[in-house]
Amino acid sequence: MAAEIVNPRSDSSTGHDGEAESAESPGSDALTFDPAFALHRGGKMAVKATVPVRDKDDLSLAYTPGVAKVCSAIAEQPELVHDYTWKSSVVAVVTDGTAVLGLGDIGPEASLPVMEGKAILFKQFGGVDAVPIALDCTGVDEIVDTVSRLAPSFGGVNLEDISAPRCFEIERRLQERLDIPVFHDDQHGTAVVTLAALRNAARLTGRSLGDLRGVISGAGAAGVAIAKFLIEAGIGDVAVADRKGIVSADREDLTPVKRELASITNKAGLTGSLESALAGADVFIGVSGGTVPEAAVASMAEGAFVFAMANPNPEVHPEVAHKYAAVVATGRSDFPNQINNVLAFPGIFAGALQVRASRITETMKIAAAEALAAVVGDDLAADYVIPSPFDERVAPAVTAAVAAAARAEGVARR
Amino acid sequence: MAAEIVNPRSDSSTGHDGEAESAESPGSDALTFDPAFALHRGGKMAVKATVPVRDKDDLSLAYTPGVAKVCSAIAEQPELVHDYTWKSSVVAVVTDGTAVLGLGDIGPEASLPVMEGKAILFKQFGGVDAVPIALDCTGVDEIVDTVSRLAPSFGGVNLEDISAPRCFEIERRLQERLDIPVFHDDQHGTAVVTLAALRNAARLTGRSLGDLRGVISGAGAAGVAIAKFLIEAGIGDVAVADRKGIVSADREDLTPVKRELASITNKAGLTGSLESALAGADVFIGVSGGTVPEAAVASMAEGAFVFAMANPNPEVHPEVAHKYAAVVATGRSDFPNQINNVLAFPGIFAGALQVRASRITETMKIAAAEALAAVVGDDLAADYVIPSPFDERVAPAVTAAVAAAARAEGVARR
Repeated sequence: MAAEIVNPRSDSSTGHDGEAESAESPGSDALTFDPAFALHRGGKMAVKATVPVRDKDDLSLAYTPGVAKVCSAIAEQPELVHDYTWKSSVVAVVTDGTAVLGLGDIGPEASLPVMEGKAILFKQFGGVDAVPIALDCTGVDEIVDTVSRLAPSFGGVNLEDISAPRCFEIERRLQERLDIPVFHDDQHGTAVVTLAALRNAARLTGRSLGDLRGVISGAGAAGVAIAKFLIEAGIGDVAVADRKGIVSADREDLTPVKRELASITNKAGLTGSLESALAGADVFIGVSGGTVPEAAVASMAEGAFVFAMANPNPEVHPEVAHKYAAVVATGRSDFPNQINNVLAFPGIFAGALQVRASRITETMKIAAAEALAAVVGDDLAADYVIPSPFDERVAPAVTAAVAAAARAEGVARR
Repeated sequence: MAAEIVNPRSDSSTGHDGEAESAESPGSDALTFDPAFALHRGGKMAVKATVPVRDKDDLSLAYTPGVAKVCSAIAEQPELVHDYTWKSSVVAVVTDGTAVLGLGDIGPEASLPVMEGKAILFKQFGGVDAVPIALDCTGVDEIVDTVSRLAPSFGGVNLEDISAPRCFEIERRLQERLDIPVFHDDQHGTAVVTLAALRNAARLTGRSLGDLRGVISGAGAAGVAIAKFLIEAGIGDVAVADRKGIVSADREDLTPVKRELASITNKAGLTGSLESALAGADVFIGVSGGTVPEAAVASMAEGAFVFAMANPNPEVHPEVAHKYAAVVATGRSDFPNQINNVLAFPGIFAGALQVRASRITETMKIAAAEALAAVVGDDLAADYVIPSPFDERVAPAVTAAVAAAARAEGVARR
């Protein structure tokens, strides 16, 4: 398989023998002294028992012979698996390592620190147990088959950092096959938090979503999902730009996903560059990286919203954006209004698991966005359209809203 | 997939509405009052973060942007995955639910309570994190492909409760493909503990393994593995009986696995029934269920050993066995000399993970058995040939012996 058999102790770059390091390798100094490496040593998570195993009596209840009764009961009444195992509290965080953060296709092993990070955020913010599953395959069929076979052990599947356009088909086919929620967070988590911020920005400036025309930079997982979700939520119009410009029906280079996008977005029939589309636009949403020229930002409508979410370098620096926009948000924690998925996914899964939902519907996601927006309440201000990830009201509010929406829509099992 | 969409509250057998229950269903009384059900409610395990996520600074180290440096480092030096993720401390406990305890093929969901139990034993006794993975497939190719694709996330694979003969091929093919240990505990865990007990029984009675002729009842996963392992360890002779009698080269109904067994066991050329093979035998090892007639036990050699390990009903009741045998062991915790896999698997995996072994070799298993036997030390007695599962010396002794054997054999990566 992947890793070679290597003795780290004989490997110069992890030792302290002073041998030259390659320019790209993290040096022994980084591995030793960088706080990120120190924190990651040994991983960031563990498993724990929630029942005692101190003596024979404990063992005979938690393991044989006592466990056999529980197994038999589930064999007879399959739904009891939700009551008598951790299935309904555990989510698989699944990746193939093809689109990890801004790093791209770095493979399954190298993606594991992100998946562990995601898992501990699930626990910390949503009380949801999560297990990193980094797959050594990238084919759509392989991933769908593999995750389907794992599904009996999990209450939900969070797809993570899988590149577009494969991520769309993988999610769709998995959700068709499975009776547990399948949720590609890079798409929907981002879309939910973006909608929440947009709702509050509109409220702050006395407009409704239907009044707004938006432009999204980036037609990957996040861009496509945000566009669809904003349309679902009732935005006036939205156009999406990829590297070649605005996605429009007249383009002949579109993938099937972008052809569909062209058919549902861009009512205005814009063509050409992202910059030209920004002239008179009310909303800019950046999920692409790259840089938007200041002149293009200046050409936006009065009272515009600039959500420049690329990390670590926003498409428009907030200082520039503030010259022209009424509301500015980024993906960074060191500026106000951080659009951060952690505001959404823990509560969305916690709510879905709480009622044993079979899927996460559009209605549930809209409910999540509204609950998240509502946390801001009367404190709404230009630098406060979205709560902090550490606001303890967030996850309970999202959880309750998602659970209620699932029940109302009939996808809950309790 | 598996479970239907059912609302447990409308299901009579989990409610308290007094409706008639089917004879086979666990009644509401059992689900409410049985201590095994009470203990299992909500499952037996959870995930926890081992690093703080209290504020922005924590988040920026454990997640973006800090995590990106760690990912990049692993992408460049794959072996660093062992240092900076939980890979080297976590084992997948994989089953397809086809041979669960004495319950047989009850499917993946119903097997989960056993897999969770196994996972918490891994943690409690070996300090090893373990994740239950119950697969919704039973084909050998499917299982091998699926587990191979999961492997980047785990430091080892414990196969569990997969029926014979598929379990042999699955384990062999997985170990060929993967560079992490693959260990079918129903085979090797049982074999290791059996050998430890047998070594001590031989020491107690002043004999060597080479002096002994054994008969094993049961040619499933455990029986086949015990036979091979005892031969590896130097037993004088051993014959294996399945339901049709002694496995011998003249039989024409043998599966490929049993044909191989016939070629390496039964030097004495026994044929016919288990009972006839016991005449003059030194060791009986039961891993089959069923009952051995007292007369057959009485026909064994002077100073025989009876290891009747079927649960909950030993093949020979200890009271009967004691009339004829010098040493009696069972699989039950309420008699002395319990042959319990938990004495082996936590330390075996802990030792293998500690040195990042690429596999678990025969030498490592022999080392585990010897370390386990040695814990008994000078306290050796007829009713103490094997330590208690709660003896705190066991796991450290097995861990150290396995790690040392892996290093000596060159399968360790550090």
